[in-house]
Amino acid sequence: MADGKRPRIVIVGGGFGGVKLAKLFAKENVDVKIVDRHNFHLFQPLLYQVSTSVLSSDEIAYPIRSFFRNCKNVDLYMAKAQGVDQDCDELITNHGEIPYDYLVLAAGATTNFFGMEEVEKHAFGMKTLQEALHIRNHVLHEFERADKPYRTPEDRKKRMTFVVVGGGPTGIEEAGALAELIEIQKKEFHHLDFNDVSIKLIEATGHVLPMLPEDLQEEAVRVLRKKGVEVMLNTQVVGYDGDELTLKSGVKIPTTTVIWAAGVRAVDFIKECGGECARDGRIWIDEDLRVKGAKHGNVFAIGDCAAFMHGDMQRPLPTVAPVATQQAVVCHKNIMKLINGDNNLEKFVYKDLGAMATIGRGDAVVGSPKLTGFLAWCAWMLVHLIRLAGAHANFTVAIKWTWNLLSGTRLGRIITNIQLDDGRRR
Amino acid sequence: MADGKRPRIVIVGGGFGGVKLAKLFAKENVDVKIVDRHNFHLFQPLLYQVSTSVLSSDEIAYPIRSFFRNCKNVDLYMAKAQGVDQDCDELITNHGEIPYDYLVLAAGATTNFFGMEEVEKHAFGMKTLQEALHIRNHVLHEFERADKPYRTPEDRKKRMTFVVVGGGPTGIEEAGALAELIEIQKKEFHHLDFNDVSIKLIEATGHVLPMLPEDLQEEAVRVLRKKGVEVMLNTQVVGYDGDELTLKSGVKIPTTTVIWAAGVRAVDFIKECGGECARDGRIWIDEDLRVKGAKHGNVFAIGDCAAFMHGDMQRPLPTVAPVATQQAVVCHKNIMKLINGDNNLEKFVYKDLGAMATIGRGDAVVGSPKLTGFLAWCAWMLVHLIRLAGAHANFTVAIKWTWNLLSGTRLGRIITNIQLDDGRRR
Repeated sequence: MADGKRPRIVIVGGGFGGVKLAKLFAKENVDVKIVDRHNFHLFQPLLYQVSTSVLSSDEIAYPIRSFFRNCKNVDLYMAKAQGVDQDCDELITNHGEIPYDYLVLAAGATTNFFGMEEVEKHAFGMKTLQEALHIRNHVLHEFERADKPYRTPEDRKKRMTFVVVGGGPTGIEEAGALAELIEIQKKEFHHLDFNDVSIKLIEATGHVLPMLPEDLQEEAVRVLRKKGVEVMLNTQVVGYDGDELTLKSGVKIPTTTVIWAAGVRAVDFIKECGGECARDGRIWIDEDLRVKGAKHGNVFAIGDCAAFMHGDMQRPLPTVAPVATQQAVVCHKNIMKLINGDNNLEKFVYKDLGAMATIGRGDAVVGSPKLTGFLAWCAWMLVHLIRLAGAHANFTVAIKWTWNLLSGTRLGRIITNIQLDDGRRR
Repeated sequence: MADGKRPRIVIVGGGFGGVKLAKLFAKENVDVKIVDRHNFHLFQPLLYQVSTSVLSSDEIAYPIRSFFRNCKNVDLYMAKAQGVDQDCDELITNHGEIPYDYLVLAAGATTNFFGMEEVEKHAFGMKTLQEALHIRNHVLHEFERADKPYRTPEDRKKRMTFVVVGGGPTGIEEAGALAELIEIQKKEFHHLDFNDVSIKLIEATGHVLPMLPEDLQEEAVRVLRKKGVEVMLNTQVVGYDGDELTLKSGVKIPTTTVIWAAGVRAVDFIKECGGECARDGRIWIDEDLRVKGAKHGNVFAIGDCAAFMHGDMQRPLPTVAPVATQQAVVCHKNIMKLINGDNNLEKFVYKDLGAMATIGRGDAVVGSPKLTGFLAWCAWMLVHLIRLAGAHANFTVAIKWTWNLLSGTRLGRIITNIQLDDGRRR
């Protein structure tokens, strides 16, 4: 910067944190590059709706460049980040090196299979758009397969058993939406015996939605059970070979569909960044959001890929959007301070906005203020619509949800082949 | 049927003809099976809008079963038809044999590369949803690739050259929509030199849109040129290796994108049906729509896969939706006559409803009554909205088109990996 050039900010990841940060820097006299392997920002909280045919993929994915149409100093560099060369201040990608003055890791999280390779191979993750479309295709296709006259009763039942693992918001929402999808399928498969169909939600601990008060947890379980979901608490999965799910108790559940929503970890790239990482791969950051163990003070991390802990906390902050966007605000301030020669950086303090989860059409639980049922669902819908990127997406999504609520139908139940980013089967 | 069972009608293909036919039979005392390798009906005339990021795939694909929710006698059998055993009256599929009393081939058409294998391997067809999504992904990705700083000027220009082959409605509409997509990309790629970008429309004959009067043909070319499309008439393609398109004149055009809209032929399955086929693979049918050369009188064919010619016609009827739906009406009547023991079948007479093509946002040409410009575009929009399946799809598509017209933006410019049905590369 001594040569008069504008400071170069490189942001890895165009998620909630990365985009928010780039928007803040767009107004400054700096050059910003967002590095992402996709050209779109993904509204992850609604992925489960794509996986259950409620929404189209275009409705929860927004071109990153569109945010910065009028910001000539912000650019997208579509590439896969692979590591950081801290000696040269360069980000390494599969499309060459990108020099930076300040680097912000906002690369997000992926599914955590806790080292169970067999499960990872056969179960569905639900963190990317491709994975959600995969689940959609697979579930719809299993109905078509089960409908074939030559199936044995066992084979048919196995294909009509849908297991969701994990009682967090994603698992709850997925199980609830699947139950509703099946109600619609019932009307259209005239010869299939729907007594064969079952949805099981498996949770290792004794309660779902750990971030909500106990009465709301119980309310969520009650609503799910009413919808026909078999909620199995205190149940641990130890294996899945694509045909049978094995529980710790030794019980085996024949099923061709296991959706894994039981944990997240940082993306693999994070461990190549030269900082200290937690057990789940998240990189430890200081109170000023700088990466612990980095050689220089110009590498920051925010959001799901970062592990942040105050002195008195029991565990790092959760991997949710509000953490990422709040950290983006402080990260922007601190980098601007450094650019302006001020080393007195601001400390990050998280403001918990409460949690909410929807359990299907017209039903949800909201933690603060405490709400259940239709009112909670309206609150949930409003919050998600406001946050959804792009004025138009808001509009069609609102129409679709209303339509869905009134008519009880699901468009988008179409089966197309999908190729996963990592080239995995299906 | 002598045993008192209801007559079994098997329809191969859930396109315009097949679905229309099944709807007519739904009210009769018969059992209907639609056999299709996809679970959705595709609104093919709008495929080009998916390929250019205007519409989402869900908006032009409609689950076949949804048409027949209240018709217990109509069912979908999702499978790939492979041939017909006329001795046993069975349709052969990759999921077993399906016995029929009456069989209707409504299997549609695919891209005709006229035997040029190299072109087929490297060019994009545009007949399936997957192919349209492929084109979308590829075109958007080429912009990201061209934007990389390490490209040579030649490489960049090659990636920014988009060639559409074929001056029919599909080619015209694709070229026009691409031109508009590029106007939008211009606003979002701050560092790309758009002088490198070119769109070429190549047509072998001396005019585009052969089914329209000459002044409308000239109007279409004029509008396209105004949009920046280079229209090359009397130009024949002889080869394409993925890097260079070779013209008959010997001229070579470096390009990574060739979209082939120059011809259609019947799907391969049709030649396994035991009838007489034309050079383009379409099966010849009599005036009562029964397949010529079939062993028994219970095999019909309608739509794009059938070749129909009155005594005084120069060439078979074109492969357009109105032919298929009009044939469906007569096919239904004739099969019901046969079921009721009446062998005096109705002869099919085609009623030409005229042709139309849109050339982009707010501009189109309509043959009858003769219209151009915005008024023609309104007529085009109305006709397509009315025909689009599903009340809800109409609604969101109408909103999207209006939004698109007013704002000049395109949502859905997201890049995802797609796997072709035939497992081809990309």
